[in-house]
Amino acid sequence: MNVAQEFDPLYRAALALNLEHSHDGAALATITQTRGSTFRRAGASMLVLRDGRLICELSGGCPQRDIAWRAQQVIDSGQPALVAYGREANYDVMIETGCGGELEVLIEPLQVPRDLQFLDAIAQLRSRRLPGAMATVYAADGDVLGPRPQRLVQGEGVTWSDIEVDALRQQIAAALPTIDASMPKAATRRMSVDGRSYEVLVESLLPPHALVIVGDGVSARVLAELSVQLGWQTTLVDPAQTTTETSNGIRHIAASPQALATQVVLDHLTSAVVMTHRLERDLGYLEALLDTPVSYLGVIGSRQRAAQIQGALPHGHPRLHMPAGLDVGSETPQEIALAVAAEILATRNGRSGGPLTHSQMPIHP
Amino acid sequence: MNVAQEFDPLYRAALALNLEHSHDGAALATITQTRGSTFRRAGASMLVLRDGRLICELSGGCPQRDIAWRAQQVIDSGQPALVAYGREANYDVMIETGCGGELEVLIEPLQVPRDLQFLDAIAQLRSRRLPGAMATVYAADGDVLGPRPQRLVQGEGVTWSDIEVDALRQQIAAALPTIDASMPKAATRRMSVDGRSYEVLVESLLPPHALVIVGDGVSARVLAELSVQLGWQTTLVDPAQTTTETSNGIRHIAASPQALATQVVLDHLTSAVVMTHRLERDLGYLEALLDTPVSYLGVIGSRQRAAQIQGALPHGHPRLHMPAGLDVGSETPQEIALAVAAEILATRNGRSGGPLTHSQMPIHP
Repeated sequence: MNVAQEFDPLYRAALALNLEHSHDGAALATITQTRGSTFRRAGASMLVLRDGRLICELSGGCPQRDIAWRAQQVIDSGQPALVAYGREANYDVMIETGCGGELEVLIEPLQVPRDLQFLDAIAQLRSRRLPGAMATVYAADGDVLGPRPQRLVQGEGVTWSDIEVDALRQQIAAALPTIDASMPKAATRRMSVDGRSYEVLVESLLPPHALVIVGDGVSARVLAELSVQLGWQTTLVDPAQTTTETSNGIRHIAASPQALATQVVLDHLTSAVVMTHRLERDLGYLEALLDTPVSYLGVIGSRQRAAQIQGALPHGHPRLHMPAGLDVGSETPQEIALAVAAEILATRNGRSGGPLTHSQMPIHP
Repeated sequence: MNVAQEFDPLYRAALALNLEHSHDGAALATITQTRGSTFRRAGASMLVLRDGRLICELSGGCPQRDIAWRAQQVIDSGQPALVAYGREANYDVMIETGCGGELEVLIEPLQVPRDLQFLDAIAQLRSRRLPGAMATVYAADGDVLGPRPQRLVQGEGVTWSDIEVDALRQQIAAALPTIDASMPKAATRRMSVDGRSYEVLVESLLPPHALVIVGDGVSARVLAELSVQLGWQTTLVDPAQTTTETSNGIRHIAASPQALATQVVLDHLTSAVVMTHRLERDLGYLEALLDTPVSYLGVIGSRQRAAQIQGALPHGHPRLHMPAGLDVGSETPQEIALAVAAEILATRNGRSGGPLTHSQMPIHP
């Protein structure tokens, strides 16, 4: 399944297929393995609709066109396919796209409501902001598994599976709980049961990153809009707001500093930015947020304001970014939003900001 | 007048006032002077419509609400106003907003087509991508100049003025050509003519930053959309494009590397990003772009691809950013666009792109 911030549009599009009543169907393409330099990594998924539309495109750089073409065949046949791109297979496609690396892609049909049940299970975990893991059994003895891949989705209080071989399901279930943040987000494992060899894509499922913005100005609005574009669950806490509503993907609420933690989830996968432009108010929300496990806490304002706030807080706080944002010379609200969103992303990924050309780190997290 | 990337929405809204036939009118608020820490600097402008809408909001942090309220009075009276916010005037407003600094704001009515002529002159310079300068005479002997501020807009081949006192206009015109990039973007000067003392806001007018993106994938589209949001003139060069069209602010063209320079302005205020994901094609466009004065030239791709391209180019190029983007751990197309746009902005402003908390530089450019 896709990285956390891309799941929602894919799931919405899958639900909109209306598989109870429609026979249009679609196909889900998932990168199961990569080797060398590829644009996206294992676990990235793209939905291909019968009319040719692509949801969560993988990129123009991977052999996306070929994948989309094969997906139409999968929609027509109702049978899954496993396609390799690399030195030994489909080399012409790889040459054309110049990826450099190698890819294996699972393409599965989505035709009946049952085909979406694993997405429902993931959505259930996400709505409760619980981490989990998913295993996709997609090949047996070297051939794609038919008539569908079989899966196990597991998290605190949620277990869903359609894996038919009991011993395989038990072996996978026993292996999953060892998943932690230090493992790659997705990796393929080979598992043997009763003399058969299965290929299993094992992925960690993280709740989506959430951003809570406290502020009432145009800069707060613009940052909220950019946050939605990045796929972050976005809440705008506007002290002047009188009603709670969700529009354009932004949840608008009014909450005093004291009420904040009861109205918004503030976990370690949440970032918060305080930008009310009023010292006392900023301080009130800041102190409330410092009592929560949010992993990034930014304050927008001048260096003078930052010094005032530092002086008012009892001790240093490593999660506090003040003034918030990367040093890109921002002036307009759009530029400030860009600088702050980039710093949040860098912080989440343990990156420095600064040019990639000066860094030795891998480009992707 | 506003920073280059904010002019277009303000000008569009001013034209939409339809002052030939409508008597609704509007008011333009311009920060003429600042002292200490303020959110926006001299030259920032906001348009206030009679129905209360604000175009190019200054921010929630400055005394915007008070400015908007006074702007309605200016619309009603048809007379300009000069408002100071600071220790000696309107201190209650400043306390409430907690700006810390001091501001002087000119609010002028826009009621008849003549009131927009200086905007037309700026637009003319911008459409030809020529730099220029504008002087706004807004006070005489300490009082706001009525019935309107008077201006001089000057650039290569363009001179427009409604300054009535010949000697003052000549003195300003003689002073303007000394403007260069090293001066602040806007500064107030006092000029004396015939025993009267005038306050003149002098601003440099830069053509808007332009971004040219060469690529056909989803990542190129997403970067183009973000570029438009940042107010950059955006061209998407799609080798697969068959027609030239402009949609959602993005100009779509097809151009071979050889034809690129004839179809797109590629000046030193232009940045370019190459992301066709095909080595030969990337190289073709890169070589064409290296022959132009574009100030930022980014290539998106793996480090392996970057090394291949470096190897194919005859010598090092300081304008070349490869792999393009700040090191924030981007994975999705939206995240890649964020990282690349942030690096472009940092490069334009001579910034490092690292966290502001590690920098001693002023936040704004």
